[in-house]
Amino acid sequence: MTATATARRTVRVDLGDRSYDILIGPGLISAAGREIASRLKGRKIAVITDAHVAPLYLGGFMGALQAEGIDAVSLVLPAGEKTKSFEHLISVCDSVLAARIERNDAVVALGGGVIGDLTGFAAGIVRRGSRFIQVPTSLLAQVDSSVGGKTGINSPHGKNLIGVFHQPDLVLADTDVLDTLSPREFRAGYAEVAKYGLIDKPDFFAWLEKSWRDVFAGGEARIEAIATSCQAKADVVAADERENGQRALLNLGHTFGHALEAATEYDSARLVHGEGVSIGMVLAHQFSARMNLASPDDARRVEAHLGEVGLPTKMDQIPGGLPPAEKLMDAIAQDKKVKAGKLTFILTRGIGQSFVADDVPQSEVIAFLKEKLPK
Amino acid sequence: MTATATARRTVRVDLGDRSYDILIGPGLISAAGREIASRLKGRKIAVITDAHVAPLYLGGFMGALQAEGIDAVSLVLPAGEKTKSFEHLISVCDSVLAARIERNDAVVALGGGVIGDLTGFAAGIVRRGSRFIQVPTSLLAQVDSSVGGKTGINSPHGKNLIGVFHQPDLVLADTDVLDTLSPREFRAGYAEVAKYGLIDKPDFFAWLEKSWRDVFAGGEARIEAIATSCQAKADVVAADERENGQRALLNLGHTFGHALEAATEYDSARLVHGEGVSIGMVLAHQFSARMNLASPDDARRVEAHLGEVGLPTKMDQIPGGLPPAEKLMDAIAQDKKVKAGKLTFILTRGIGQSFVADDVPQSEVIAFLKEKLPK
Ligand SMILES: NC(=O)c1ccc[n+]([C@@H]2O[C@H](COP(=O)([O-])OP(=O)(O)OC[C@H]3O[C@@H](n4cnc5c(N)ncnc54)[C@H](O)[C@@H]3O)[C@@H](O)[C@H]2O)c1
Ligand SMILES: NC(=O)c1ccc[n+]([C@@H]2O[C@H](COP(=O)([O-])OP(=O)(O)OC[C@H]3O[C@@H](n4cnc5c(N)ncnc54)[C@H](O)[C@@H]3O)[C@@H](O)[C@H]2O)c1
Ligand SMILES: [Zn+2]
Ligand SMILES: [Zn+2]
Repeated sequence: MTATATARRTVRVDLGDRSYDILIGPGLISAAGREIASRLKGRKIAVITDAHVAPLYLGGFMGALQAEGIDAVSLVLPAGEKTKSFEHLISVCDSVLAARIERNDAVVALGGGVIGDLTGFAAGIVRRGSRFIQVPTSLLAQVDSSVGGKTGINSPHGKNLIGVFHQPDLVLADTDVLDTLSPREFRAGYAEVAKYGLIDKPDFFAWLEKSWRDVFAGGEARIEAIATSCQAKADVVAADERENGQRALLNLGHTFGHALEAATEYDSARLVHGEGVSIGMVLAHQFSARMNLASPDDARRVEAHLGEVGLPTKMDQIPGGLPPAEKLMDAIAQDKKVKAGKLTFILTRGIGQSFVADDVPQSEVIAFLKEKLPK
Repeated sequence: MTATATARRTVRVDLGDRSYDILIGPGLISAAGREIASRLKGRKIAVITDAHVAPLYLGGFMGALQAEGIDAVSLVLPAGEKTKSFEHLISVCDSVLAARIERNDAVVALGGGVIGDLTGFAAGIVRRGSRFIQVPTSLLAQVDSSVGGKTGINSPHGKNLIGVFHQPDLVLADTDVLDTLSPREFRAGYAEVAKYGLIDKPDFFAWLEKSWRDVFAGGEARIEAIATSCQAKADVVAADERENGQRALLNLGHTFGHALEAATEYDSARLVHGEGVSIGMVLAHQFSARMNLASPDDARRVEAHLGEVGLPTKMDQIPGGLPPAEKLMDAIAQDKKVKAGKLTFILTRGIGQSFVADDVPQSEVIAFLKEKLPK
């Protein structure tokens, strides 16, 4: 217990009267009842989770709530990106309303980024905004999606095109639960950890190159990597909650990544989000080199590190073939980061020196993609 | 043209960097292209309307946009309260995305409160918030629903239970279009006009008792009544955008009204929103008298005026029968204005002296409803 208390870290997201804490450390699922009861006025909770997480953690989580006298109901949805749909949004809203969750009660997302994005969106629209607690169980959700208030679902027109900004009231990141995550999903989340280094923390990236095995193994290094990532995200969000400026840097690797996710029809057997981001970050560094903004050595260093941890770094590692460059370009153009027809891209001048480029010529991107696409 | 310019009124809704204008007057549909073009950076618009409004005003509105070089697409939905559903929300989102509406472009609601609430909700969630213009064509929408940023749809659990706050960027209230509104719908909107008097403007209510025939006839008195109503709503919204306090006063008559709408299954053949509000306002005054808060004379005065203009004032005027008091109570309890199980009601001490009552006993409400329900 003393070890737990020492190991636990708290990152505060500073947003005036909507500020909230991210608790990071081992054993937080068992401690969830206490942490929630001490912060919540109401005594009712609706827990949304998925079919992979439910058998592992739902029982323990509900037990922790009951121990504190919190009345909880739960809804288990299918696992996977396809769950971020209107169909499941409707069932979440319906469960929350059926449970008569009122203003001081809360909706909880227990799961990865899919459950977090979907549940946060539902919490944001039920009664025009209900209290919301994130209990992220994937590495990606702990270091990225559970922090910052972006919520949403996918549309046939593209990823995350429908949603709201709705900040959580609390984030509980239990670092123990990552042990049951598949190695592939852990690596995918790790791509986002590396991203924070590549955005503006060259020393963190260098530390990861040295210490990644410890991060994968668990313990202090893992907690450190997660806390550093959450702090990085919290700083950006506090400075630019609605993504009018610098928050866009968090999309490093994502413009290409989202296009690849669309091209593989969000089929997680072929590509998961973090893998798309991994390939996308390598492409962003290569494209920056091609535009004479950065040295090709930096792109090679990024590719080497991500490759070493076992992440895909090239489009030809995606099974099942990809559409031609022009089609990928269409997906990019329909992405959110487009203003009055001009392409906005996150490019870089080197490791930890990324920036928002506002008018990247489409023709250059198409030519670059043609070069890189498997023949 | 000079007459038009003189008659036009502008009410400003003061919300910091989200402030916007409500333009009120004749001929605003034909002038829409000019008013929008001078305010909008983008050049694309998606217009959402319904099957009653489309044949009357969609052509003129699209023409006015085209004359200013604005590229517009339109979607026509079925008319009526049932259109405020997830099903139609999905089609609006889909049309807006298919039209590739970007950050500087806009979504327009051309219609009554149903189209305004649904379209505003879609605008609030597409790309996590798109620009939004209200062109309200019913009296109710002009004096109430188009102002203040509440948007949403209905759920099987109750009215307006799903939605967001999303302020419009502009409201264009063309007072000419009210001439084609059915007398029944005009009267329904008039209930909300009278509401502003009953909330805190006894002089306005007295003026309406005297001048209502002129308001119904059109011209200056109508513009005056609409501008006074918009100003009243704008003041409340500016003081309490998110309904944490005084904005709740706008719900005078609505707690009973919503329960009646639910009981008649949102069937507009039996009851439209404003009619529910009319009966609800009479009930709120009668209930206040029963609680010894106000004189029964005030309730009689409200009933007399609303009855004189042709609005229903008693539950037994609703065709088709109503459920028992306990059932109505359930609908009231599931309404948004419930905190930790206690009933919040808008009650009154007399004409223009309404207030928020936080702990109205359920038993009193049930006893009162039993008395008032048709035997
Ligand atoms: N809102 C944001 O700011 C933001 C940021 C980044 C990504 N995202 C979104 O996040 C989603 C990806 O998140 P993700 O990678 O967590 O996906 P996910 O939620 O699908 O989780 C990945 C898989 O791991 C399983 N899982 C989760 N926790 C587990 C555990 N502890 N043990 C065993 N299995 C577990 C899940 O059931 C799922 O099968 C994408 O939809 C992406 O768009 C959102
Ligand atoms: N958002 C808010 O703050 C707020 C406030 C009050 C009411 N509302 C909502 O507004 C809705 C009621 O609005 P409403 O009464 O405008 O209903 P509505 O939109 O259904 O319009 C009433 C009828 O009049 C028709 N119509 C509209 N304009 C016309 C015109 N100029 N000529 C001929 N026919 C016309 C419509 O097609 C419809 O058949 C309800 O859903 C209610 O919940 C919202
Ligand atoms: Zn990501
Ligand atoms: Zn109303």
